[in-house]
Amino acid sequence: MSTPPVLSCPLPPGATIGILGGGQLGRMLALAAARLGLKAHIYSDEATAPAFQIAPAHTCARYDDTQALERFAASCNVVTFEFENLPEATLRFLAERVPVAPNPRALSVAQDRFLEKSFVADLGIATAPFKSVASAAQAKEAFTVLGGPCVIKTRRLGYDGKGQRKIVSEDEAANAFAALGAVPAIVEKFIDFSFEASVLAARGRDGAFAAFDPPKNEHEHHILRRSTVPAPLSEAKVREAVRIVRTIAEALDYVGVIAVELFVPREGDLIVNEVAPRVHNSGHWTIEACVTSQFEQHIRAVAGWPLGDPTRHSDAVMENIIGAEVNKWLEYAGRKEGLHLYGKAEAHNGRKMGHITRIAPKGTWQS
Amino acid sequence: MSTPPVLSCPLPPGATIGILGGGQLGRMLALAAARLGLKAHIYSDEATAPAFQIAPAHTCARYDDTQALERFAASCNVVTFEFENLPEATLRFLAERVPVAPNPRALSVAQDRFLEKSFVADLGIATAPFKSVASAAQAKEAFTVLGGPCVIKTRRLGYDGKGQRKIVSEDEAANAFAALGAVPAIVEKFIDFSFEASVLAARGRDGAFAAFDPPKNEHEHHILRRSTVPAPLSEAKVREAVRIVRTIAEALDYVGVIAVELFVPREGDLIVNEVAPRVHNSGHWTIEACVTSQFEQHIRAVAGWPLGDPTRHSDAVMENIIGAEVNKWLEYAGRKEGLHLYGKAEAHNGRKMGHITRIAPKGTWQS
Repeated sequence: MSTPPVLSCPLPPGATIGILGGGQLGRMLALAAARLGLKAHIYSDEATAPAFQIAPAHTCARYDDTQALERFAASCNVVTFEFENLPEATLRFLAERVPVAPNPRALSVAQDRFLEKSFVADLGIATAPFKSVASAAQAKEAFTVLGGPCVIKTRRLGYDGKGQRKIVSEDEAANAFAALGAVPAIVEKFIDFSFEASVLAARGRDGAFAAFDPPKNEHEHHILRRSTVPAPLSEAKVREAVRIVRTIAEALDYVGVIAVELFVPREGDLIVNEVAPRVHNSGHWTIEACVTSQFEQHIRAVAGWPLGDPTRHSDAVMENIIGAEVNKWLEYAGRKEGLHLYGKAEAHNGRKMGHITRIAPKGTWQS
Repeated sequence: MSTPPVLSCPLPPGATIGILGGGQLGRMLALAAARLGLKAHIYSDEATAPAFQIAPAHTCARYDDTQALERFAASCNVVTFEFENLPEATLRFLAERVPVAPNPRALSVAQDRFLEKSFVADLGIATAPFKSVASAAQAKEAFTVLGGPCVIKTRRLGYDGKGQRKIVSEDEAANAFAALGAVPAIVEKFIDFSFEASVLAARGRDGAFAAFDPPKNEHEHHILRRSTVPAPLSEAKVREAVRIVRTIAEALDYVGVIAVELFVPREGDLIVNEVAPRVHNSGHWTIEACVTSQFEQHIRAVAGWPLGDPTRHSDAVMENIIGAEVNKWLEYAGRKEGLHLYGKAEAHNGRKMGHITRIAPKGTWQS
């Protein structure tokens, strides 16, 4: 099995898309697949994975269970994933048995902040100045060299602000390294940006490319609170954002939807903060405001279908429903907006439980 | 169990909506429920029901299997249905055990063309002149009394032109009665209309009412080919259509989405052709062109939730994909429109296999 299997033609209706991960992104991917007459098979190690509830097939097993992975591969026509904190070995094991998209390299680059930032910087795209550190001493040194306030982040397994700390002194650098578990990390210079944005795009198996309009993103406690389209970006900046995501997708020979988180500085180039090799929370507004949502677009790409139309027909604001806020579901339901609840049983603090999208005619919220 | 159970409060996320019928309407209802964090349990007597593929629970059993119905009722918080050719006894059996919406009376009125037309006419709403017939002699007599060309339709079990014939002579009337199986039928005067339209609306458990814009409908071989919104109707005619569906829904103490098929005459009042106590093919465009689709609206109503926003943000044309046309799925997928495939294995002649919706800014196709 030295040559990985590839998809030789678009998957016909009735084919099965395997999805690694069973959270809300997997759930919304499975719903998008169902609409196109494609079946989803969800693989997750969590017995209560929200996506299990709505998929025609599911496997609950560890990501290193090779027997379960073997059976999963045999039952799917293509495999994709909904989160990046997935063992790369899992994806490589599957890729020897069934076409996998995005490819394992895209995952391995995106799941390590040092590889990711190096990869982006090597493409000539702006990032915050950064250094890889493997000890408290190196963390102190990186802080000194970079100068001024910095952020230290574990190279792996961070999300929603987990695995990162702001540092404003050499001592803090050393302490933060220890507090994060003394694991490989990066120290990057703190960027004083005007606001955060993201750009999502899809690349098809034939190299076709389609970008969604970039939203402005607002965070609270490091968790996305709100995405608004259009973002207050000039046309030139929108073109720059699309050029960035396209350059990254092409360099990775990417297939599927990819998201790039951006810092928008008061002046100068857009700065890449993070690359997510998957559908993304800041693209949920596409369900209401585009004919083809990010979820359908990803399914189309990985199934070898023509990409759908990413045109935005409305302005949109998406807000996350976080933790105990979901207890107000009846109030949200009365808002006459696009409500999505993820079927999660327990509303932990900071857990994304749903989202709600308000649309308005184009130009309503134009900057 | 003399008092039928009623829903005392809105069903919380995680609750189960039972759906009788497993076709594309049941499938799209289940997908809409999933989006709201509600679960669907599909009940159908067909082993290959398309809705089975995407629902977290399903029962495959006959509609008169009281043991299966008993278990189904026990597993659901509310029960609804997606087709009207359902034994009324099934719904009455369930309604003694679990809240059912729409109510059994709405089903019994809508599934018998004579009761339906009588009910509508008694509300002072225009219908084609009609007579109930139970023999060839009565069919001939009805033709003579009504005068001119007529249509004979079986009272029950007709859809997509099945169970009906046009008749232009007394002899044809008698022959058609026999050809339709010599079952109870109605003869109605053939209406020379300008075009066909429909009006869909939802009524909530609290009496709240929300109508969608009425589409113009075009049929081929008695099967819906195309629905277009807006229809070329004056504002006064749109108000008349909405008044008709509201009058009918209120008279039935209806809960859920209801569809009324209309003949639009060259002049004079709108004429009711048929009442469908369910979501309807001519409302599929609401998925792309409204924040709340007809499917979500029906789920909201039967679950006791506030109704969603039926406002249309775009013009839309929905076309059905019928029979072997589905073999061109890849061509449809390339059209940059909203494509829906129903997961049906066999493309029988005349079978609805999917649909595709094109949208455009409001006013694009204004009459």
